[in-house]
Amino acid sequence: MVGGRLSGEAMVNIGIVGARGFTGGELFRLCLQHPDFRVTYVTSESQAGQPVAGAFPTLEAATDLRFASFDVADACQAADALFLALPDGEAMKIAPGLLEARKPLVDVSGDFRVRDRASYESWYKLEHQSPRLLDQAVYGLPELHPEVRQARLVANPGCYPTAAILAVAPLFRERLIEPDSLIIDAKSGVSGAGGRVGMREEFSFPAVNENFRAYGVVGHRHTAETEQELTRLAGTGAEPVQIQFTPHLLPITRGLMATCYARLLQPADAGTLLDRYREFYADAPFVQITPAPPEIKHVSGSNYCRVSLAVDPRTRRVIAMAVIDNLVKGAAGQAIQNMNLMLGLEETRGLLAPALYP
Amino acid sequence: MVGGRLSGEAMVNIGIVGARGFTGGELFRLCLQHPDFRVTYVTSESQAGQPVAGAFPTLEAATDLRFASFDVADACQAADALFLALPDGEAMKIAPGLLEARKPLVDVSGDFRVRDRASYESWYKLEHQSPRLLDQAVYGLPELHPEVRQARLVANPGCYPTAAILAVAPLFRERLIEPDSLIIDAKSGVSGAGGRVGMREEFSFPAVNENFRAYGVVGHRHTAETEQELTRLAGTGAEPVQIQFTPHLLPITRGLMATCYARLLQPADAGTLLDRYREFYADAPFVQITPAPPEIKHVSGSNYCRVSLAVDPRTRRVIAMAVIDNLVKGAAGQAIQNMNLMLGLEETRGLLAPALYP
Amino acid sequence: MVGGRLSGEAMVNIGIVGARGFTGGELFRLCLQHPDFRVTYVTSESQAGQPVAGAFPTLEAATDLRFASFDVADACQAADALFLALPDGEAMKIAPGLLEARKPLVDVSGDFRVRDRASYESWYKLEHQSPRLLDQAVYGLPELHPEVRQARLVANPGCYPTAAILAVAPLFRERLIEPDSLIIDAKSGVSGAGGRVGMREEFSFPAVNENFRAYGVVGHRHTAETEQELTRLAGTGAEPVQIQFTPHLLPITRGLMATCYARLLQPADAGTLLDRYREFYADAPFVQITPAPPEIKHVSGSNYCRVSLAVDPRTRRVIAMAVIDNLVKGAAGQAIQNMNLMLGLEETRGLLAPALYP
Amino acid sequence: MVGGRLSGEAMVNIGIVGARGFTGGELFRLCLQHPDFRVTYVTSESQAGQPVAGAFPTLEAATDLRFASFDVADACQAADALFLALPDGEAMKIAPGLLEARKPLVDVSGDFRVRDRASYESWYKLEHQSPRLLDQAVYGLPELHPEVRQARLVANPGCYPTAAILAVAPLFRERLIEPDSLIIDAKSGVSGAGGRVGMREEFSFPAVNENFRAYGVVGHRHTAETEQELTRLAGTGAEPVQIQFTPHLLPITRGLMATCYARLLQPADAGTLLDRYREFYADAPFVQITPAPPEIKHVSGSNYCRVSLAVDPRTRRVIAMAVIDNLVKGAAGQAIQNMNLMLGLEETRGLLAPALYP
Repeated sequence: MVGGRLSGEAMVNIGIVGARGFTGGELFRLCLQHPDFRVTYVTSESQAGQPVAGAFPTLEAATDLRFASFDVADACQAADALFLALPDGEAMKIAPGLLEARKPLVDVSGDFRVRDRASYESWYKLEHQSPRLLDQAVYGLPELHPEVRQARLVANPGCYPTAAILAVAPLFRERLIEPDSLIIDAKSGVSGAGGRVGMREEFSFPAVNENFRAYGVVGHRHTAETEQELTRLAGTGAEPVQIQFTPHLLPITRGLMATCYARLLQPADAGTLLDRYREFYADAPFVQITPAPPEIKHVSGSNYCRVSLAVDPRTRRVIAMAVIDNLVKGAAGQAIQNMNLMLGLEETRGLLAPALYP
Repeated sequence: MVGGRLSGEAMVNIGIVGARGFTGGELFRLCLQHPDFRVTYVTSESQAGQPVAGAFPTLEAATDLRFASFDVADACQAADALFLALPDGEAMKIAPGLLEARKPLVDVSGDFRVRDRASYESWYKLEHQSPRLLDQAVYGLPELHPEVRQARLVANPGCYPTAAILAVAPLFRERLIEPDSLIIDAKSGVSGAGGRVGMREEFSFPAVNENFRAYGVVGHRHTAETEQELTRLAGTGAEPVQIQFTPHLLPITRGLMATCYARLLQPADAGTLLDRYREFYADAPFVQITPAPPEIKHVSGSNYCRVSLAVDPRTRRVIAMAVIDNLVKGAAGQAIQNMNLMLGLEETRGLLAPALYP
Repeated sequence: MVGGRLSGEAMVNIGIVGARGFTGGELFRLCLQHPDFRVTYVTSESQAGQPVAGAFPTLEAATDLRFASFDVADACQAADALFLALPDGEAMKIAPGLLEARKPLVDVSGDFRVRDRASYESWYKLEHQSPRLLDQAVYGLPELHPEVRQARLVANPGCYPTAAILAVAPLFRERLIEPDSLIIDAKSGVSGAGGRVGMREEFSFPAVNENFRAYGVVGHRHTAETEQELTRLAGTGAEPVQIQFTPHLLPITRGLMATCYARLLQPADAGTLLDRYREFYADAPFVQITPAPPEIKHVSGSNYCRVSLAVDPRTRRVIAMAVIDNLVKGAAGQAIQNMNLMLGLEETRGLLAPALYP
Repeated sequence: MVGGRLSGEAMVNIGIVGARGFTGGELFRLCLQHPDFRVTYVTSESQAGQPVAGAFPTLEAATDLRFASFDVADACQAADALFLALPDGEAMKIAPGLLEARKPLVDVSGDFRVRDRASYESWYKLEHQSPRLLDQAVYGLPELHPEVRQARLVANPGCYPTAAILAVAPLFRERLIEPDSLIIDAKSGVSGAGGRVGMREEFSFPAVNENFRAYGVVGHRHTAETEQELTRLAGTGAEPVQIQFTPHLLPITRGLMATCYARLLQPADAGTLLDRYREFYADAPFVQITPAPPEIKHVSGSNYCRVSLAVDPRTRRVIAMAVIDNLVKGAAGQAIQNMNLMLGLEETRGLLAPALYP
């Protein structure tokens, strides 16, 4: 490891800070499948001293690590590169110390996704503790941000924005739609609620099973990063994009779908648009363009994003749809994809396992 | 029973034509709870001669009826009023004979929902066999069609249109939105697929469970009746409304939600709109306006439709949401509600059972 | 109402003490369907003063009652008959006062199910506060306890015992099996966990969905009442029956199945045994003997118990199976069935709604 | 590849005969994760000529293979080792030709599991076409059959027997229980029904979801191999073991649990027995002994089998429980584990991925 780049056959020692939640556990699982990664440091304030396998029985055969309480010196000693899987508002406190020690960092929280400090503080209702880092952080959607390869700090996208942005990026980049016509109707499995699931009645089995509901109907935090990225895609000179975004809770554990509606500027047929999508994503190994509407189960457990679209000639609208596993491409898998790139590894390293089906 | 009206204490003898599917079974279940209805005639061509309880084990204690093969004379002899629960294209063949015998009819198929013959034939890819009846048929959304009380033939609405129209009717009637901005993103449980569920791999448990997908993305038949009704609500002089409608398959058995997006003509806040909704539905016993986003489980097994909305001041869009049980308010329950009105009974008769929860 | 008996057309005013949990809500729902019952008093200490419909949105159209804090004078004033739906250990404290006021009581907790005080205290790890009432209480499995009709205090059976005892009662009563060979492998939906569901991670959606596990493998409280009743069925002179009982958690909301294994004393074929079951339950309107293995969904939402059996001639074992809805026949429905009998009403009054299917 | 053993760095070319079903797809998925395996030949009579990714969209990025129609010469040309994933009765027809060509074979059907021809024919209602091979075939439960390493033909166990035998093997080997007291109450997810799922109403979503039922209550085929193996474990001189086995259908896609009841010959406590289990399985990398009752979700997607037990001192019964993923340790994963051993590879090669959780 020199300057964040991997040389020779060495394994990369990986730290996971805030490893008690679903994303932390998924990071651990995916690192086990990674031929170059070895988890050497995991933290949880509430579980400090306890074995990781106590919190994640599925990892029992795989590790005898114990959770540590986070300490920057320990972290730098134990890990070559780190994932931060803390709640919003926490990563910004510890990132500076780790970056000073020149550790590649991927933060899966929202702390560094929104480049504009005022916008962050308004959507997140939090004061930013490390505003200086906002400029350095790269938004880690590698399909659209090749500069991840040079990044020291990557802000891993939210699960909803990952699916939504991938679903409509070609439309914005090629200026095919009326920007302000975009409506994102999104649906996620329960694991998207992260650590909050355990103790809240609204996420108990009887409250979710055989049920479906919208939540955070106007004002969900993920709106901010989605608008930021779509504005960027629309290019200089374009007005800031304003979207409509509505998340819903699916009675499934994993998986997320975004159904996106926008008005085409010019009539176009689905076949032509699908071809443009294929071209746009020609170098994106995890984006699969499919002729039929994508299904969540076709990506569950995998890092793939499947995208399709239809066009309604009557209304001149395009309906673009994307599915991902919210814990993989929507969180831990994408974080590893980013880390691969930061470390000079093949983007797909350790991430090619297909979905579990059925 | 004189002229289709109920007098005194007599029970109404009910016929269900095409009773083998989910809607037929649900009609039977709801009639059992109805103090004035008694099912006396049920047909199924494939099950003719077999006991109803063989097809619906849940009805074992309730009935020893057997399925008949449909015969108009038998039907008129055995039943005072009939529900037609046949596939699209079938009701139009037998309705004339039953109407001639002056039997009140509620058809739950799509045959009489679209008043314009050409439109019907274009959306349904079927030639209409009884075009003369299209004018007589009343679209059976009683909240919006008080003339159901005088009808002899009611076209029971589709499940998606029931939820979607109820969600946005006040917006159209009061001309609060840009009509062509309406997008309906709808999600339904599997029982909405009716009789087709049993033998198709796409509806097998492993294909649906932990999954979610869109289908019929452009061109679903329910578009036709929704546009017809919204155009009517918009009033004379208005352009024909064109909507965007996308159905999705939820991994649940019962229940349906429509999330509807439209651009407000003038800024308005949610509270004010909710008040207008409450006023609009003041006489509608099955429509419940709720401040929080409605949940499917709050209506499962019941004839209620719960409606709520939010407004995004940034985009000036209203997001209106409605949930129903697709087999009750979306099919059998609404059919009984219509029949109650046709027979001069209280609209809510036999239909007030609350949802099964949890 | 004279002496707990219903006369004429009067409605019975019903009180539900401890109405915040799933059983309380289900009692309310079923009372709404009961032609003679009217809920007039509901209590919840944590929700006192709040509207019932706040806790149960499904009841919004049905009631504007508010939860009271329990008070014996208020209760006696407001209600003719009461259901106690409190946690184990609570009903025993308030039952004496209500009985003094000559109010018919059905307690759905475990407090009065075990006649032997020492046994109760050993299984429940609680000191009994009203041991004097243990003799008066009738075990409310009406199919086996006709004396419910004369009871003032009925101990409503647990959900598991209801299914298990009904599955094997004829075998014990007719002494067809080796009593100590009985093994009950039982599986229940999550609502069986009652009020504890909301706040415990083990009942969160991701912890239950696509999962299955045993719990309370040896020593579940329901063992005590099951053994008591089977011993009684075996008749005087028989040894106390000792059973093996293992509950499991099904990833469903409602429903329960007991699979029961016992060694036959003499070879017998399934057909003969099924006939004896039919005879045994000839007067039990809610017990349905079916030739095929029963399915939970055939009883969900209903008060029916479906029972079937098979015989393995190789091993001379009988496998008896029963399914119920744990919240209806396993709790609230059976409580109403008992109350009907206590009040001199038809046993089936208000309880004949078939299962919701599909 | 010399004599079925792997030498040096070469990849093993793998054939999957009958690859259209769930097990075939799972074999493909697991081979993709195997560092030494490369699928080069897949057959399906119904899909011959079609791309594999058409049948398994999840494999789209991983393969452009097409299904062939089975031909022994092609198979021997294309593959070094083969898995047979055909329905019962088919593998016995093609195994001889492949064995003649000295190809290591793992058959996942029931054709070679039962060594006694008469017993096979009686349980399977089929005439055996290759009875001569019954002696050669090794029952592929590697934890109990080390001779798999020398086998040319392995009969991969059924899913239920895998879990049940692993749950009780130490009890039989060490003669701790009354052999004929064994009752296996087993529960499986729907994917266990294999190719039959797609087109049968009983496996449609509405028929399985929120439901639970027993099936094949007496006489399920898996009884035969379970009894055979337990008799073998009990040792020479022991009577043939006769078990009670009841399978049930869980409303989940993957996963299986066996709850096993047996009477101990001598009192023993759970701790002591768990220690004996740990010793018994000390060299079995996929068997995990857990103090708490095992959960299906802790093994879903993995090749692990988790086993626990409890003892009821009152009844002197042991309750042993095991969970597996029916498609992995219960089918495809175990098949690869066997193939690893036959090829002289590390038993765990390609199989250490932990369960997907949550």
